[in-house]
Amino acid sequence: MALHHFDTNATIIAPATASGGAVVMVRISGPEAISITDSIFRGRKKLSDAKGYTLHYGDIVYDNGNVLDDVVVALFRAPHSYTGEDSVEVNLHGSEYIVSEFLRLAIEHGAMMATPGEFTQRAFLAGKMDLSRAEAVADIIASDSQWSHNVASTQMRGTYSERLGAMRESLLRLCSLLELELDFSEEDVEFANRDELRNMLENINSEVAQLKSSFALGNVLKNGVTVAIVGEPNVGKSTLLNALVEDDRAMVSDIAGTTRDTIEATTIIDGICYRFVDTAGLRTTADQLEQMGIDRTYRAMENAQIILHITTAENPSFEEISILPHQKYIQVVNKIDKITSIDTQTADSPLQISAKCNIGIDSLRTALRKCTDTSHLNSSSVVVTNMRHYAALEKASESLEAALTAMDNNLPSDLLSEDIRQTLHHLGEITGDITSDDILQTIFSKFCIGK
Amino acid sequence: MALHHFDTNATIIAPATASGGAVVMVRISGPEAISITDSIFRGRKKLSDAKGYTLHYGDIVYDNGNVLDDVVVALFRAPHSYTGEDSVEVNLHGSEYIVSEFLRLAIEHGAMMATPGEFTQRAFLAGKMDLSRAEAVADIIASDSQWSHNVASTQMRGTYSERLGAMRESLLRLCSLLELELDFSEEDVEFANRDELRNMLENINSEVAQLKSSFALGNVLKNGVTVAIVGEPNVGKSTLLNALVEDDRAMVSDIAGTTRDTIEATTIIDGICYRFVDTAGLRTTADQLEQMGIDRTYRAMENAQIILHITTAENPSFEEISILPHQKYIQVVNKIDKITSIDTQTADSPLQISAKCNIGIDSLRTALRKCTDTSHLNSSSVVVTNMRHYAALEKASESLEAALTAMDNNLPSDLLSEDIRQTLHHLGEITGDITSDDILQTIFSKFCIGK
Repeated sequence: MALHHFDTNATIIAPATASGGAVVMVRISGPEAISITDSIFRGRKKLSDAKGYTLHYGDIVYDNGNVLDDVVVALFRAPHSYTGEDSVEVNLHGSEYIVSEFLRLAIEHGAMMATPGEFTQRAFLAGKMDLSRAEAVADIIASDSQWSHNVASTQMRGTYSERLGAMRESLLRLCSLLELELDFSEEDVEFANRDELRNMLENINSEVAQLKSSFALGNVLKNGVTVAIVGEPNVGKSTLLNALVEDDRAMVSDIAGTTRDTIEATTIIDGICYRFVDTAGLRTTADQLEQMGIDRTYRAMENAQIILHITTAENPSFEEISILPHQKYIQVVNKIDKITSIDTQTADSPLQISAKCNIGIDSLRTALRKCTDTSHLNSSSVVVTNMRHYAALEKASESLEAALTAMDNNLPSDLLSEDIRQTLHHLGEITGDITSDDILQTIFSKFCIGK
Repeated sequence: MALHHFDTNATIIAPATASGGAVVMVRISGPEAISITDSIFRGRKKLSDAKGYTLHYGDIVYDNGNVLDDVVVALFRAPHSYTGEDSVEVNLHGSEYIVSEFLRLAIEHGAMMATPGEFTQRAFLAGKMDLSRAEAVADIIASDSQWSHNVASTQMRGTYSERLGAMRESLLRLCSLLELELDFSEEDVEFANRDELRNMLENINSEVAQLKSSFALGNVLKNGVTVAIVGEPNVGKSTLLNALVEDDRAMVSDIAGTTRDTIEATTIIDGICYRFVDTAGLRTTADQLEQMGIDRTYRAMENAQIILHITTAENPSFEEISILPHQKYIQVVNKIDKITSIDTQTADSPLQISAKCNIGIDSLRTALRKCTDTSHLNSSSVVVTNMRHYAALEKASESLEAALTAMDNNLPSDLLSEDIRQTLHHLGEITGDITSDDILQTIFSKFCIGK
């Protein structure tokens, strides 16, 4: 299919909904959106004669008059659309054959396949939203829990942009005062009071530091917490995974080594998404395929935030495994249904459970949830979830530190001003006030097609 | 979630698109569709004040005023909607969290979760389409190839209904003539000429027989052709599957017994869908899990229409396997890249291929496609694809035969009339002219939710 790069004269097309449902919605946007659709649509009247924000029933027809499908078309006229351009949304019957034929037909009549995120990118270029809001659109689509939704939603509504905007405004004011001093440099005046200046820079620096420090939590809220379930073969790791996610996700048998590949499943605990990775049991094996699985277990462990180490009540000792500094470690004794009495000495820690009989699973969920502290958050807290934003905040922080050092050393105001300009630049990168084509391309290429 | 059964006073809700895309569309239909949406939607004006066939931008809000999402709402007023009722389609950002929260919110405000196919069932009950057209909606959604689309599309456009309608009309006319004779029974008149009557019954019977005979092909066009790939371990079955579907669908290794479970993948060859089932290699094994896989291979073979038997050029003999009478059988010699010369005696049959080097794959595709003869079809051919229709045609045929036998035996016209009424009944079941709640429930429960 024809792809292209950021030519806003092109009219772009892509399905905006996933395939597999009763309906698939295909979006068309650009200067020819309405005329291209008119050339393959036969309704009661021409779309080009219709007003925006109206719906139209009719047939999608081939050039030879054969009908592909009967559809409902939603018509949006510039600038009152998601992209700010003329746009059409076509609701087709959700057959893969119909959708691919429709795309082919529209492309034959002049549309081009949209690149990932191109609809949202056009919205950004048309000034319909700033960059951090555009990124929040992708995050809101990916959100699968209450917290990831709250964080993306706060960002999309612009609370984050407003805070960054306020910081940039203060810095801009400082900058102009400092630059005014330069114009009067022979007279040695100070328009910007140095105490106030330092105060303000320190306030902004601490606000930037606060945003930066929210990133560790933000990453968890956005992407969930990865939990590796590890232990020797046949301690019941797959059974525990199934119990935690309340589903028969992993194949279970009494045969040691049943799980070859790592198996993932997710569940929400109190608004946070946990991704459990069931791994091959750790043992020495001659089976080549099983060994490949064990190697993947070690990789899964490295990437986890929590290690859930399982043993059984019949043999409740934990072999030493290596834990990285930032990782949380929880020990669990499984199969307590197999023994008659529980040793009270160890009843507290490690956790005593039976995955098979669903004993202690709720306590384990509570223990997992305690690893993530969200007690200080409310639904409008600004939390940084985006690696690109974190990097920009890091650079902004460096420039602010440089400015403060410059002040300590009584460096001239033009150097001070230069550091503040740098800070402004980095904060501006987040909202897209300062941007480049490279940055845009990187950001929007991570979107799904159709958004 | 609250489910209910065919209470058209209820307002129903369900996502109509699959989850996983940028957008998810949720459909609401019923007497309260507009007021329920108004209670959770904050736009520029109330939907209850707006005309049908219009679009509205705004926020979905919780009772406490918090915003869940910003959306576009499409408004349809009865009877100008898919269901014939007041309907609303809400385009949400495609997050699972947002969709489930939206459903919860709408259900709290009075909507009920739709049962599968309930939207289309309401369209049928409102007289928007007959039963065979409603069923074609489900088929068109499931269509994944040109032929399955053509067949469903012909049915949805009503060509099939028209043919059945014409038959029913002739039979009804005959019936009334015969029943008129009964009113004048003492006078021994014949309003219906017996030669013409017989002629007409025979014509209809042969048309019904033709429709019945189209079912075998119809089933293939609608559901595709299942091809089991079988053979000893390590003859390259998984590699062949990947080559046929041009994708890395199956895990491939040099280790015999790599494929444990059956793996399916589909591809379209000249408008027909082929479903390939890669199976565990047939051998005696002590590995319990591998044996489970081999048992599944035998089950897969039973359900296939074509058996693709693979061996290798290094050892090109085919062990005997059992083929069912209706199954097609194709022998293939793989790994011809491993030998230096091809034995010309066997170059024709079995097929000589190298799945790894992509030699002979196109010839194999041609051989597979030749197993299904579609040469006599055109895009408006009526082909029966539905088991329920086939069963009804079978019964109609029995009644017609009974009527013809009655004529042969000069049985009185009331018995003849009764047989024709039976035929009418069975043909009417297909279009829904004659129907019962049980039949409706069975039909619509096979639909996906949201349609």
